[in-house]
Amino acid sequence: MNESEQLLEFLGKNGPDFTQPLPEIRIGFDRMTSALTPPEDYAPEQAVLGGVPVVVAGIPAGRDGGRVLFYLHGGGFLLGSAAGFSGLACRIAGTIEARAVIGDYSRSPEAKFRDARKQALAAYRALLENGVSPQAIVVAGDSAGGGLSLSLLGAIRDAGLPMPAAAVLISPWLDLTLSGGSMDSKAEVDVLLTRAGLADMASAYLQGHDANDPAASPLLGDFAGFPPLQIHVGTNEVLLDDSLRGATRAAHCDVLVELKVWPGMIHDFPLFAQLLTQGRDVITAAGTFLGRFAN
Amino acid sequence: MNESEQLLEFLGKNGPDFTQPLPEIRIGFDRMTSALTPPEDYAPEQAVLGGVPVVVAGIPAGRDGGRVLFYLHGGGFLLGSAAGFSGLACRIAGTIEARAVIGDYSRSPEAKFRDARKQALAAYRALLENGVSPQAIVVAGDSAGGGLSLSLLGAIRDAGLPMPAAAVLISPWLDLTLSGGSMDSKAEVDVLLTRAGLADMASAYLQGHDANDPAASPLLGDFAGFPPLQIHVGTNEVLLDDSLRGATRAAHCDVLVELKVWPGMIHDFPLFAQLLTQGRDVITAAGTFLGRFAN
Repeated sequence: MNESEQLLEFLGKNGPDFTQPLPEIRIGFDRMTSALTPPEDYAPEQAVLGGVPVVVAGIPAGRDGGRVLFYLHGGGFLLGSAAGFSGLACRIAGTIEARAVIGDYSRSPEAKFRDARKQALAAYRALLENGVSPQAIVVAGDSAGGGLSLSLLGAIRDAGLPMPAAAVLISPWLDLTLSGGSMDSKAEVDVLLTRAGLADMASAYLQGHDANDPAASPLLGDFAGFPPLQIHVGTNEVLLDDSLRGATRAAHCDVLVELKVWPGMIHDFPLFAQLLTQGRDVITAAGTFLGRFAN
Repeated sequence: MNESEQLLEFLGKNGPDFTQPLPEIRIGFDRMTSALTPPEDYAPEQAVLGGVPVVVAGIPAGRDGGRVLFYLHGGGFLLGSAAGFSGLACRIAGTIEARAVIGDYSRSPEAKFRDARKQALAAYRALLENGVSPQAIVVAGDSAGGGLSLSLLGAIRDAGLPMPAAAVLISPWLDLTLSGGSMDSKAEVDVLLTRAGLADMASAYLQGHDANDPAASPLLGDFAGFPPLQIHVGTNEVLLDDSLRGATRAAHCDVLVELKVWPGMIHDFPLFAQLLTQGRDVITAAGTFLGRFAN
Protein backbone atom coordinates (compact mmCIF):
# COMPACT_ATOMS: atom_id res chain seq x y z
CA MET A 1 0.00 0.00 0.00
CA ASN A 2 1.57 3.32 -1.02
CA GLU A 3 1.27 6.53 0.97
CA SER A 4 -1.75 7.87 -0.93
CA GLU A 5 -3.59 4.59 -0.39
CA GLN A 6 -2.69 4.65 3.31
CA LEU A 7 -4.06 8.19 3.48
CA LEU A 8 -7.36 7.16 1.89
CA GLU A 9 -7.62 4.29 4.35
CA PHE A 10 -6.86 6.66 7.24
CA LEU A 11 -9.53 9.10 6.04
CA GLY A 12 -12.06 6.31 5.69
CA LYS A 13 -11.43 5.17 9.26
CA ASN A 14 -10.86 8.54 10.93
CA GLY A 15 -12.75 11.11 8.91
CA PRO A 16 -15.83 12.61 10.59
CA ASP A 17 -19.28 11.19 9.86
CA PHE A 18 -20.97 14.11 8.12
CA THR A 19 -24.43 12.57 8.57
CA GLN A 20 -24.22 13.29 12.31
CA PRO A 21 -25.18 16.57 14.07
CA LEU A 22 -22.57 19.38 14.04
CA PRO A 23 -21.20 18.78 17.58
CA GLU A 24 -20.40 15.17 16.68
CA ILE A 25 -18.86 16.20 13.34
CA ARG A 26 -16.62 18.63 15.20
CA ILE A 27 -15.46 15.92 17.59
CA GLY A 28 -14.76 13.58 14.70
CA PHE A 29 -12.89 16.31 12.80
CA ASP A 30 -10.74 17.07 15.87
CA ARG A 31 -9.96 13.37 16.23
CA MET A 32 -8.82 13.27 12.60
CA THR A 33 -6.64 16.41 12.75
CA SER A 34 -5.14 15.41 16.12
CA ALA A 35 -3.55 12.31 14.59
CA LEU A 36 -0.65 14.61 13.64
CA THR A 37 1.14 15.17 16.93
CA PRO A 38 3.31 18.13 18.00
CA PRO A 39 7.09 17.79 18.40
CA GLU A 40 8.17 16.50 21.82
CA ASP A 41 9.10 19.89 23.26
CA TYR A 42 5.76 21.45 22.30
CA ALA A 43 3.10 20.90 25.01
CA PRO A 44 -0.10 22.74 23.99
CA GLU A 45 -1.85 24.77 26.70
CA GLN A 46 -5.04 26.86 26.67
CA ALA A 47 -4.54 30.61 27.15
CA VAL A 48 -6.16 33.96 26.36
CA LEU A 49 -4.47 36.63 24.24
CA GLY A 50 -6.09 40.03 23.61
CA GLY A 51 -9.35 38.56 24.87
CA VAL A 52 -9.15 35.75 22.33
CA PRO A 53 -8.84 32.08 23.31
CA VAL A 54 -5.63 30.59 21.97
CA VAL A 55 -3.55 27.48 22.38
CA VAL A 56 0.14 28.13 23.01
CA ALA A 57 3.07 25.75 22.91
CA GLY A 58 6.85 25.73 22.85
CA ILE A 59 9.41 28.32 23.81
CA PRO A 60 7.83 31.07 26.00
CA ALA A 61 6.85 34.17 24.04
CA GLY A 62 8.46 37.52 24.65
CA ARG A 63 11.84 35.94 25.32
CA ASP A 64 14.56 38.12 23.82
CA GLY A 65 14.84 37.22 20.17
CA GLY A 66 12.09 34.67 20.44
CA ARG A 67 9.99 34.03 17.35
CA VAL A 68 6.24 33.50 17.35
CA LEU A 69 4.21 31.55 14.80
CA PHE A 70 0.62 32.78 14.85
CA TYR A 71 -1.51 30.01 13.38
CA LEU A 72 -5.07 30.01 12.04
CA HIS A 73 -6.58 26.58 11.49
CA GLY A 74 -8.81 25.19 8.77
CA GLY A 75 -12.22 23.54 8.88
CA GLY A 76 -14.35 25.76 6.67
CA PHE A 77 -14.88 28.29 9.51
CA LEU A 78 -17.25 25.64 10.95
CA LEU A 79 -15.00 22.82 12.15
CA GLY A 80 -11.52 22.52 13.60
CA SER A 81 -9.97 23.85 16.76
CA ALA A 82 -6.68 25.26 17.98
CA ALA A 83 -6.06 22.12 20.03
CA GLY A 84 -6.93 19.87 17.10
CA PHE A 85 -4.47 21.64 14.79
CA SER A 86 -1.68 21.97 17.35
CA GLY A 87 0.21 19.13 15.67
CA LEU A 88 0.52 20.90 12.33
CA ALA A 89 1.02 24.36 13.87
CA CYS A 90 3.70 23.19 16.30
CA ARG A 91 5.53 21.19 13.66
CA ILE A 92 5.79 24.31 11.51
CA ALA A 93 6.74 26.42 14.55
CA GLY A 94 9.39 23.86 15.43
CA THR A 95 11.19 24.35 12.12
CA ILE A 96 12.12 27.90 13.17
CA GLU A 97 12.16 27.30 16.93
CA ALA A 98 9.17 29.59 17.35
CA ARG A 99 6.51 29.64 20.03
CA ALA A 100 3.22 28.47 18.52
CA VAL A 101 0.19 30.67 19.20
CA ILE A 102 -2.90 29.09 17.64
CA GLY A 103 -6.06 31.19 17.39
CA ASP A 104 -9.18 29.44 18.73
CA TYR A 105 -11.45 31.78 16.83
CA SER A 106 -15.25 31.56 17.03
CA ARG A 107 -16.77 29.29 14.41
CA SER A 108 -19.84 29.41 12.22
CA PRO A 109 -22.75 29.30 12.54
CA GLU A 110 -22.52 30.60 16.15
CA ALA A 111 -20.12 33.44 15.30
CA LYS A 112 -21.13 36.51 13.37
CA PHE A 113 -19.40 37.30 10.07
CA ARG A 114 -16.15 39.21 10.77
CA ASP A 115 -15.80 37.74 14.31
CA ALA A 116 -12.98 35.39 13.32
CA ARG A 117 -11.12 38.17 11.50
CA LYS A 118 -11.56 40.59 14.42
CA GLN A 119 -10.31 37.97 16.86
CA ALA A 120 -7.27 37.20 14.72
CA LEU A 121 -6.45 40.92 14.59
CA ALA A 122 -6.98 41.32 18.37
CA ALA A 123 -4.62 38.43 19.12
CA TYR A 124 -1.99 39.80 16.71
CA ARG A 125 -2.30 43.26 18.27
CA ALA A 126 -1.85 41.72 21.73
CA LEU A 127 1.35 40.00 20.61
CA LEU A 128 2.72 43.40 19.59
CA GLU A 129 1.52 45.00 22.83
CA ASN A 130 3.27 42.22 24.75
CA GLY A 131 6.51 43.42 23.21
CA VAL A 132 6.99 40.83 20.49
CA SER A 133 8.70 42.43 17.48
CA PRO A 134 6.60 42.17 14.31
CA GLN A 135 9.73 40.99 12.51
CA ALA A 136 9.77 38.02 14.91
CA ILE A 137 6.17 37.08 14.11
CA VAL A 138 5.18 34.83 11.24
CA VAL A 139 1.63 33.88 10.28
CA ALA A 140 0.49 30.55 8.90
CA GLY A 141 -2.80 28.86 8.20
CA ASP A 142 -4.45 26.10 6.20
CA SER A 143 -7.64 25.99 4.14
CA ALA A 144 -10.18 28.43 5.66
CA GLY A 145 -7.41 29.42 8.09
CA GLY A 146 -5.17 30.18 5.10
CA GLY A 147 -7.82 32.56 3.81
CA LEU A 148 -8.20 34.02 7.28
CA SER A 149 -4.41 34.52 7.42
CA LEU A 150 -4.48 36.51 4.20
CA SER A 151 -7.52 38.43 5.43
CA LEU A 152 -5.63 39.16 8.66
CA LEU A 153 -2.78 40.73 6.67
CA GLY A 154 -5.29 43.12 5.10
CA ALA A 155 -6.75 43.90 8.53
CA ILE A 156 -3.26 44.55 9.94
CA ARG A 157 -2.46 46.95 7.10
CA ASP A 158 -5.82 48.71 7.35
CA ALA A 159 -5.34 49.10 11.14
CA GLY A 160 -1.96 50.76 10.57
CA LEU A 161 -0.12 48.03 12.49
CA PRO A 162 3.28 46.71 11.39
CA MET A 163 3.24 43.60 9.23
CA PRO A 164 4.58 40.23 10.39
CA ALA A 165 7.80 38.98 8.79
CA ALA A 166 6.20 36.45 6.44
CA ALA A 167 3.24 34.13 6.00
CA VAL A 168 2.68 30.57 4.81
CA LEU A 169 -0.65 29.53 3.32
CA ILE A 170 -1.46 25.84 2.93
CA SER A 171 -4.25 24.98 0.46
CA PRO A 172 -5.85 28.35 1.28
CA TRP A 173 -9.53 29.03 0.62
CA LEU A 174 -9.37 32.57 -0.75
CA ASP A 175 -12.49 32.92 -2.86
CA LEU A 176 -15.87 32.32 -1.21
CA THR A 177 -17.61 33.13 -4.50
CA LEU A 178 -16.22 29.77 -5.73
CA SER A 179 -15.35 31.24 -9.13
CA GLY A 180 -12.16 29.22 -9.78
CA GLY A 181 -12.13 26.96 -12.84
CA SER A 182 -10.73 24.15 -10.68
CA MET A 183 -14.08 24.04 -8.80
CA ASP A 184 -15.25 22.03 -11.80
CA SER A 185 -12.07 20.76 -13.47
CA LYS A 186 -10.85 19.11 -10.24
CA ALA A 187 -14.25 17.99 -8.92
CA GLU A 188 -13.62 14.36 -9.79
CA VAL A 189 -10.19 14.08 -8.17
CA ASP A 190 -10.90 16.02 -4.95
CA VAL A 191 -11.77 13.44 -2.27
CA LEU A 192 -12.40 16.00 0.49
CA LEU A 193 -14.20 19.06 -0.88
CA THR A 194 -17.11 19.72 -3.22
CA ARG A 195 -18.67 22.89 -4.57
CA ALA A 196 -21.88 22.11 -2.66
CA GLY A 197 -20.02 21.54 0.60
CA LEU A 198 -18.01 24.74 0.22
CA ALA A 199 -21.15 26.69 -0.68
CA ASP A 200 -22.81 25.46 2.54
CA MET A 201 -19.80 26.47 4.64
CA ALA A 202 -19.59 29.86 2.90
CA SER A 203 -23.27 30.42 3.56
CA ALA A 204 -22.96 29.56 7.27
CA TYR A 205 -19.96 31.89 7.55
CA LEU A 206 -21.29 34.81 5.50
CA GLN A 207 -24.81 34.87 6.98
CA GLY A 208 -26.08 36.87 4.04
CA HIS A 209 -22.96 39.03 3.68
CA ASP A 210 -21.60 39.53 0.14
CA ALA A 211 -18.95 36.93 -0.75
CA ASN A 212 -17.38 39.54 -3.05
CA ASP A 213 -16.27 41.62 -0.06
CA PRO A 214 -12.47 41.20 0.25
CA ALA A 215 -13.03 40.68 4.01
CA ALA A 216 -14.81 37.48 2.98
CA SER A 217 -12.78 36.58 -0.12
CA PRO A 218 -9.27 37.96 0.37
CA LEU A 219 -8.36 36.99 -3.20
CA LEU A 220 -10.45 39.96 -4.30
CA GLY A 221 -8.59 42.43 -2.06
CA ASP A 222 -5.46 44.49 -2.45
CA PHE A 223 -2.24 42.71 -1.39
CA ALA A 224 -0.14 45.90 -1.41
CA GLY A 225 2.30 46.00 1.49
CA PHE A 226 1.91 42.32 2.32
CA PRO A 227 4.99 40.49 3.62
CA PRO A 228 6.58 37.57 1.72
CA LEU A 229 4.08 34.77 1.10
CA GLN A 230 4.64 31.09 0.55
CA ILE A 231 1.67 29.16 -0.86
CA HIS A 232 1.38 25.36 -1.03
CA VAL A 233 -1.33 23.54 -2.94
CA GLY A 234 -2.03 20.06 -4.30
CA THR A 235 -3.23 19.47 -7.84
CA ASN A 236 -6.12 17.23 -6.67
CA GLU A 237 -8.03 20.12 -5.14
CA VAL A 238 -11.08 22.04 -6.27
CA LEU A 239 -9.35 24.95 -4.48
CA LEU A 240 -6.26 24.72 -6.72
CA ASP A 241 -7.15 27.93 -8.52
CA ASP A 242 -7.43 29.83 -5.22
CA SER A 243 -3.70 29.32 -4.73
CA LEU A 244 -2.78 29.96 -8.37
CA ARG A 245 -4.82 33.16 -8.48
CA GLY A 246 -3.54 34.15 -5.03
CA ALA A 247 0.07 33.89 -6.20
CA THR A 248 -0.77 35.82 -9.36
CA ARG A 249 -2.50 38.57 -7.40
CA ALA A 250 0.43 38.80 -4.99
CA ALA A 251 2.85 39.14 -7.90
CA HIS A 252 0.74 41.88 -9.47
CA CYS A 253 0.87 43.70 -6.11
CA ASP A 254 4.70 43.44 -6.05
CA VAL A 255 4.66 41.00 -3.14
CA LEU A 256 7.44 38.43 -2.81
CA VAL A 257 5.65 35.16 -3.39
CA GLU A 258 6.72 31.56 -3.63
CA LEU A 259 4.17 29.08 -4.96
CA LYS A 260 4.70 25.36 -4.64
CA VAL A 261 2.34 23.06 -6.53
CA TRP A 262 2.37 19.41 -5.43
CA PRO A 263 1.07 16.95 -8.08
CA GLY A 264 -1.43 14.33 -6.95
CA MET A 265 -1.78 15.80 -3.46
CA ILE A 266 -5.20 16.34 -1.89
CA HIS A 267 -6.56 19.39 -0.12
CA ASP A 268 -4.60 20.32 3.03
CA PHE A 269 -2.30 17.32 2.66
CA PRO A 270 0.32 18.59 5.18
CA LEU A 271 -2.34 17.94 7.83
CA PHE A 272 -1.56 14.28 7.18
CA ALA A 273 2.20 14.64 7.41
CA GLN A 274 2.36 11.54 9.64
CA LEU A 275 1.47 9.57 6.49
CA LEU A 276 2.76 11.65 3.56
CA THR A 277 6.36 12.41 2.61
CA GLN A 278 5.15 15.49 0.73
CA GLY A 279 3.36 16.69 3.87
CA ARG A 280 6.64 16.59 5.77
CA ASP A 281 8.35 18.29 2.82
CA VAL A 282 5.88 21.19 3.07
CA ILE A 283 6.65 21.63 6.76
CA THR A 284 10.39 21.67 5.99
CA ALA A 285 9.89 24.12 3.11
CA ALA A 286 7.75 26.38 5.30
CA GLY A 287 10.54 26.47 7.87
CA THR A 288 13.16 27.32 5.26
CA PHE A 289 10.99 30.13 3.92
CA LEU A 290 9.95 31.57 7.30
CA GLY A 291 13.52 31.35 8.58
CA ARG A 292 14.73 33.59 5.73
CA PHE A 293 12.52 36.47 6.90
CA ALA A 294 11.86 36.11 10.64
CA ASN A 295 14.31 37.81 12.98
CA MET B 1 24.45 53.61 -4.50
CA ASN B 2 22.32 50.51 -3.89
CA GLU B 3 22.45 47.37 -6.01
CA SER B 4 19.59 48.37 -8.30
CA GLU B 5 21.23 51.72 -8.97
CA GLN B 6 24.55 49.98 -9.66
CA LEU B 7 22.74 47.71 -12.11
CA LEU B 8 21.21 50.66 -13.97
CA GLU B 9 24.63 52.28 -14.18
CA PHE B 10 26.12 49.00 -15.45
CA LEU B 11 23.39 48.71 -18.11
CA GLY B 12 23.92 52.30 -19.17
CA LYS B 13 27.65 51.70 -19.64
CA ASN B 14 27.57 48.13 -20.96
CA GLY B 15 24.23 47.64 -22.66
CA PRO B 16 24.35 47.31 -26.46
CA ASP B 17 23.70 50.35 -28.64
CA PHE B 18 20.48 49.39 -30.40
CA THR B 19 20.92 52.13 -33.02
CA GLN B 20 23.81 50.16 -34.53
CA PRO B 21 23.56 47.37 -37.15
CA LEU B 22 22.72 43.86 -35.86
CA PRO B 23 26.31 42.48 -35.85
CA GLU B 24 27.42 45.35 -33.60
CA ILE B 25 24.39 44.91 -31.33
CA ARG B 26 25.26 41.23 -30.98
CA ILE B 27 28.85 42.07 -30.01
CA GLY B 28 27.61 44.62 -27.46
CA PHE B 29 25.08 42.17 -26.06
CA ASP B 30 27.77 39.47 -25.68
CA ARG B 31 30.01 41.97 -23.88
CA MET B 32 27.16 42.75 -21.46
CA THR B 33 26.24 39.13 -20.71
CA SER B 34 29.89 38.08 -20.42
CA ALA B 35 30.39 40.34 -17.39
CA LEU B 36 29.06 37.43 -15.32
CA THR B 37 31.97 35.00 -15.27
CA PRO B 38 31.91 31.20 -14.83
CA PRO B 39 33.18 29.54 -11.64
CA GLU B 40 36.94 28.91 -11.63
CA ASP B 41 36.72 25.23 -12.52
CA TYR B 42 34.51 25.87 -15.55
CA ALA B 43 36.54 26.65 -18.69
CA PRO B 44 34.15 27.04 -21.65
CA GLU B 45 35.15 25.31 -24.90
CA GLN B 46 33.49 25.15 -28.32
CA ALA B 47 32.20 21.71 -29.34
CA VAL B 48 29.59 20.04 -31.56
CA LEU B 49 26.85 17.77 -30.22
CA GLY B 50 24.38 16.01 -32.49
CA GLY B 51 25.49 18.30 -35.27
CA VAL B 52 24.71 21.37 -33.17
CA PRO B 53 27.35 23.85 -32.04
CA VAL B 54 27.55 23.99 -28.25
CA VAL B 55 29.82 25.38 -25.59
CA VAL B 56 30.78 22.89 -22.90
CA ALA B 57 32.43 23.47 -19.54
CA GLY B 58 33.13 21.72 -16.28
CA ILE B 59 33.24 18.06 -15.35
CA PRO B 60 33.49 15.85 -18.48
CA ALA B 61 30.15 14.45 -19.63
CA GLY B 62 29.42 10.75 -19.63
CA ARG B 63 31.41 10.21 -16.46
CA ASP B 64 29.61 7.65 -14.29
CA GLY B 65 26.94 9.47 -12.31
CA GLY B 66 27.87 12.79 -13.88
CA ARG B 67 25.11 15.34 -14.25
CA VAL B 68 24.59 17.57 -17.29
CA LEU B 69 22.94 20.98 -17.36
CA PHE B 70 21.66 21.67 -20.87
CA TYR B 71 21.30 25.43 -21.18
CA LEU B 72 19.43 27.58 -23.71
CA HIS B 73 20.30 31.27 -23.64
CA GLY B 74 18.20 34.39 -23.99
CA GLY B 75 18.40 37.30 -26.39
CA GLY B 76 15.02 37.27 -28.12
CA PHE B 77 16.14 34.52 -30.56
CA LEU B 78 18.15 37.31 -32.23
CA LEU B 79 20.98 38.11 -29.81
CA GLY B 80 23.05 36.21 -27.29
CA SER B 81 25.45 33.30 -27.66
CA ALA B 82 26.48 30.19 -25.80
CA ALA B 83 29.85 31.74 -25.00
CA GLY B 84 28.25 34.98 -23.84
CA PHE B 85 25.92 33.15 -21.45
CA SER B 86 28.53 30.70 -20.17
CA GLY B 87 28.81 32.65 -16.91
CA LEU B 88 25.17 32.20 -15.95
CA ALA B 89 24.93 28.64 -17.30
CA CYS B 90 28.11 27.49 -15.57
CA ARG B 91 27.17 29.14 -12.27
CA ILE B 92 23.89 27.21 -12.27
CA ALA B 93 25.68 24.01 -13.36
CA GLY B 94 28.18 24.53 -10.56
CA THR B 95 25.47 24.40 -7.89
CA ILE B 96 24.87 20.73 -8.72
CA GLU B 97 28.38 19.92 -9.95
CA ALA B 98 27.05 19.33 -13.44
CA ARG B 99 28.77 19.64 -16.77
CA ALA B 100 27.39 22.66 -18.61
CA VAL B 101 26.31 22.11 -22.22
CA ILE B 102 25.12 25.38 -23.75
CA GLY B 103 23.27 25.28 -27.04
CA ASP B 104 24.61 27.73 -29.65
CA TYR B 105 21.42 27.55 -31.64
CA SER B 106 20.93 29.48 -34.90
CA ARG B 107 19.47 32.93 -34.43
CA SER B 108 16.92 35.04 -36.23
CA PRO B 109 16.68 36.42 -38.81
CA GLU B 110 19.19 34.03 -40.45
CA ALA B 111 17.57 30.88 -39.02
CA LYS B 112 14.26 29.51 -40.18
CA PHE B 113 11.41 29.19 -37.69
CA ARG B 114 11.76 25.86 -35.81
CA ASP B 115 15.55 25.66 -36.40
CA ALA B 116 16.37 26.55 -32.80
CA ARG B 117 13.88 24.03 -31.45
CA LYS B 118 15.12 21.29 -33.78
CA GLN B 119 18.71 21.99 -32.78
CA ALA B 120 17.86 21.89 -29.08
CA LEU B 121 16.16 18.52 -29.57
CA ALA B 122 19.08 17.19 -31.64
CA ALA B 123 21.58 18.15 -28.94
CA TYR B 124 19.40 16.59 -26.22
CA ARG B 125 19.02 13.40 -28.25
CA ALA B 126 22.80 13.26 -28.71
CA LEU B 127 23.30 13.50 -24.94
CA LEU B 128 21.08 10.43 -24.53
CA GLU B 129 22.87 8.62 -27.36
CA ASN B 130 26.18 9.38 -25.67
CA GLY B 131 24.91 7.39 -22.68
CA VAL B 132 23.94 10.19 -20.34
CA SER B 133 20.95 9.10 -18.26
CA PRO B 134 17.92 11.38 -18.73
CA GLN B 135 17.59 11.50 -14.95
CA ALA B 136 21.06 13.05 -14.83
CA ILE B 137 20.11 15.80 -17.30
CA VAL B 138 18.51 19.08 -16.25
CA VAL B 139 17.45 21.86 -18.58
CA ALA B 140 17.62 25.57 -17.90
CA GLY B 141 17.16 28.74 -19.87
CA ASP B 142 16.44 32.44 -19.57
CA SER B 143 14.09 34.76 -21.48
CA ALA B 144 13.71 33.47 -25.06
CA GLY B 145 15.88 30.53 -23.96
CA GLY B 146 13.41 29.86 -21.13
CA GLY B 147 10.64 29.63 -23.71
CA LEU B 148 12.84 27.44 -25.90
CA SER B 149 13.49 25.19 -22.87
CA LEU B 150 9.76 24.70 -22.34
CA SER B 151 9.29 24.18 -26.08
CA LEU B 152 12.09 21.59 -25.98
CA LEU B 153 10.21 19.64 -23.29
CA GLY B 154 7.22 19.43 -25.63
CA ALA B 155 9.48 18.33 -28.48
CA ILE B 156 11.08 15.66 -26.27
CA ARG B 157 7.66 14.31 -25.30
CA ASP B 158 6.37 14.37 -28.86
CA ALA B 159 9.51 12.56 -30.06
CA GLY B 160 8.91 9.81 -27.50
CA LEU B 161 12.23 10.48 -25.76
CA PRO B 162 12.61 10.30 -21.97
CA MET B 163 12.23 13.58 -20.10
CA PRO B 164 15.11 15.27 -18.27
CA ALA B 165 14.97 15.28 -14.46
CA ALA B 166 13.85 18.90 -14.06
CA ALA B 167 13.98 22.34 -15.63
CA VAL B 168 14.56 25.90 -14.45
CA LEU B 169 13.10 28.83 -16.38
CA ILE B 170 14.38 32.35 -15.66
CA SER B 171 12.10 35.20 -16.79
CA PRO B 172 10.88 32.96 -19.62
CA TRP B 173 9.25 34.38 -22.75
CA LEU B 174 6.43 31.90 -23.28
CA ASP B 175 3.82 33.82 -25.24
CA LEU B 176 4.83 35.35 -28.57
CA THR B 177 1.29 36.65 -29.05
CA LEU B 178 2.12 39.13 -26.26
CA SER B 179 -1.30 38.68 -24.67
CA GLY B 180 -0.26 39.02 -21.01
CA GLY B 181 -1.80 41.88 -19.03
CA SER B 182 1.67 42.76 -17.71
CA MET B 183 2.66 43.78 -21.26
CA ASP B 184 0.82 47.01 -20.43
CA SER B 185 0.64 47.10 -16.61
CA LYS B 186 4.43 46.75 -16.27
CA ALA B 187 5.41 48.83 -19.32
CA GLU B 188 6.53 51.77 -17.19
CA VAL B 189 8.74 49.81 -14.80
CA ASP B 190 10.41 47.49 -17.31
CA VAL B 191 13.76 49.08 -18.24
CA LEU B 192 14.76 46.37 -20.73
CA LEU B 193 11.78 45.21 -22.77
CA THR B 194 8.88 46.85 -24.57
CA ARG B 195 5.90 45.48 -26.46
CA ALA B 196 7.26 46.99 -29.67
CA GLY B 197 10.70 45.47 -29.18
CA LEU B 198 9.25 42.04 -28.40
CA ALA B 199 6.93 42.25 -31.39
CA ASP B 200 9.92 42.95 -33.65
CA MET B 201 11.83 40.00 -32.23
CA ALA B 202 8.79 37.73 -32.53
CA SER B 203 8.34 38.80 -36.13
CA ALA B 204 11.99 38.10 -37.00
CA TYR B 205 11.71 34.67 -35.34
CA LEU B 206 8.29 33.66 -36.70
CA GLN B 207 8.83 34.77 -40.29
CA GLY B 208 5.12 34.75 -40.90
CA HIS B 209 4.41 31.63 -38.83
CA ASP B 210 1.41 31.78 -36.45
CA ALA B 211 2.41 32.93 -32.96
CA ASN B 212 -0.47 30.85 -31.58
CA ASP B 213 1.32 27.62 -32.52
CA PRO B 214 2.55 26.04 -29.26
CA ALA B 215 5.89 25.45 -31.00
CA ALA B 216 6.20 29.25 -31.05
CA SER B 217 4.36 30.06 -27.79
CA PRO B 218 4.84 27.09 -25.46
CA LEU B 219 2.42 28.67 -22.95
CA LEU B 220 -0.36 27.62 -25.32
CA GLY B 221 0.75 23.99 -25.45
CA ASP B 222 0.07 20.96 -23.30
CA PHE B 223 2.48 20.51 -20.37
CA ALA B 224 1.35 16.94 -19.63
CA GLY B 225 4.27 14.71 -18.70
CA PHE B 226 6.68 17.59 -18.12
CA PRO B 227 9.28 17.16 -15.37
CA PRO B 228 9.36 19.42 -12.27
CA LEU B 229 9.65 23.09 -13.23
CA GLN B 230 11.05 26.00 -11.27
CA ILE B 231 10.17 29.45 -12.62
CA HIS B 232 11.78 32.73 -11.52
CA VAL B 233 10.47 36.15 -12.47
CA GLY B 234 10.83 39.76 -11.37
CA THR B 235 7.83 42.01 -10.82
CA ASN B 236 9.32 44.79 -12.99
CA GLU B 237 8.87 42.85 -16.20
CA VAL B 238 6.38 43.13 -19.02
CA LEU B 239 6.87 39.35 -19.22
CA LEU B 240 5.68 38.83 -15.61
CA ASP B 241 2.43 37.24 -16.77
CA ASP B 242 4.28 34.73 -18.94
CA SER B 243 5.71 33.20 -15.77
CA LEU B 244 2.47 33.46 -13.78
CA ARG B 245 0.44 31.89 -16.56
CA GLY B 246 3.18 29.29 -17.15
CA ALA B 247 3.03 28.19 -13.51
CA THR B 248 -0.77 28.09 -13.67
CA ARG B 249 -0.74 26.03 -16.85
CA ALA B 250 1.80 23.63 -15.34
CA ALA B 251 -0.38 23.18 -12.24
CA HIS B 252 -3.44 22.51 -14.38
CA CYS B 253 -1.42 19.83 -16.20
CA ASP B 254 -0.47 18.18 -12.85
CA VAL B 255 3.18 19.19 -13.19
CA LEU B 256 5.25 19.85 -10.06
CA VAL B 257 5.96 23.56 -10.26
CA GLU B 258 7.68 26.04 -8.03
CA LEU B 259 7.20 29.72 -8.86
CA LYS B 260 9.36 32.38 -7.27
CA VAL B 261 8.36 36.00 -7.76
CA TRP B 262 11.06 38.58 -6.94
CA PRO B 263 9.71 42.08 -6.18
CA GLY B 264 11.41 45.01 -7.86
CA MET B 265 13.61 42.81 -10.03
CA ILE B 266 14.01 43.46 -13.75
CA HIS B 267 13.81 41.03 -16.66
CA ASP B 268 16.45 38.29 -16.52
CA PHE B 269 18.04 39.74 -13.38
CA PRO B 270 20.10 36.61 -12.56
CA LEU B 271 22.13 37.50 -15.66
CA PHE B 272 23.49 40.32 -13.49
CA ALA B 273 24.28 38.14 -10.47
CA GLN B 274 27.69 39.83 -10.15
CA LEU B 275 25.76 42.93 -9.01
CA LEU B 276 22.52 41.62 -7.48
CA THR B 277 22.07 39.62 -4.30
CA GLN B 278 18.75 38.33 -5.63
CA GLY B 279 20.49 37.15 -8.80
CA ARG B 280 22.84 35.02 -6.71
CA ASP B 281 19.83 33.83 -4.67
CA VAL B 282 18.17 32.58 -7.85
CA ILE B 283 21.27 30.59 -8.79
CA THR B 284 21.35 29.04 -5.31
CA ALA B 285 17.61 28.28 -5.43
CA ALA B 286 17.99 26.72 -8.88
CA GLY B 287 20.69 24.45 -7.53
CA THR B 288 18.59 23.40 -4.54
CA PHE B 289 15.67 22.60 -6.85
CA LEU B 290 17.66 20.78 -9.53
CA GLY B 291 19.58 18.83 -6.90
CA ARG B 292 16.32 17.41 -5.53
CA PHE B 293 15.50 15.73 -8.84
CA ALA B 294 18.74 15.05 -10.73
CA ASN B 295 20.41 11.70 -10.13
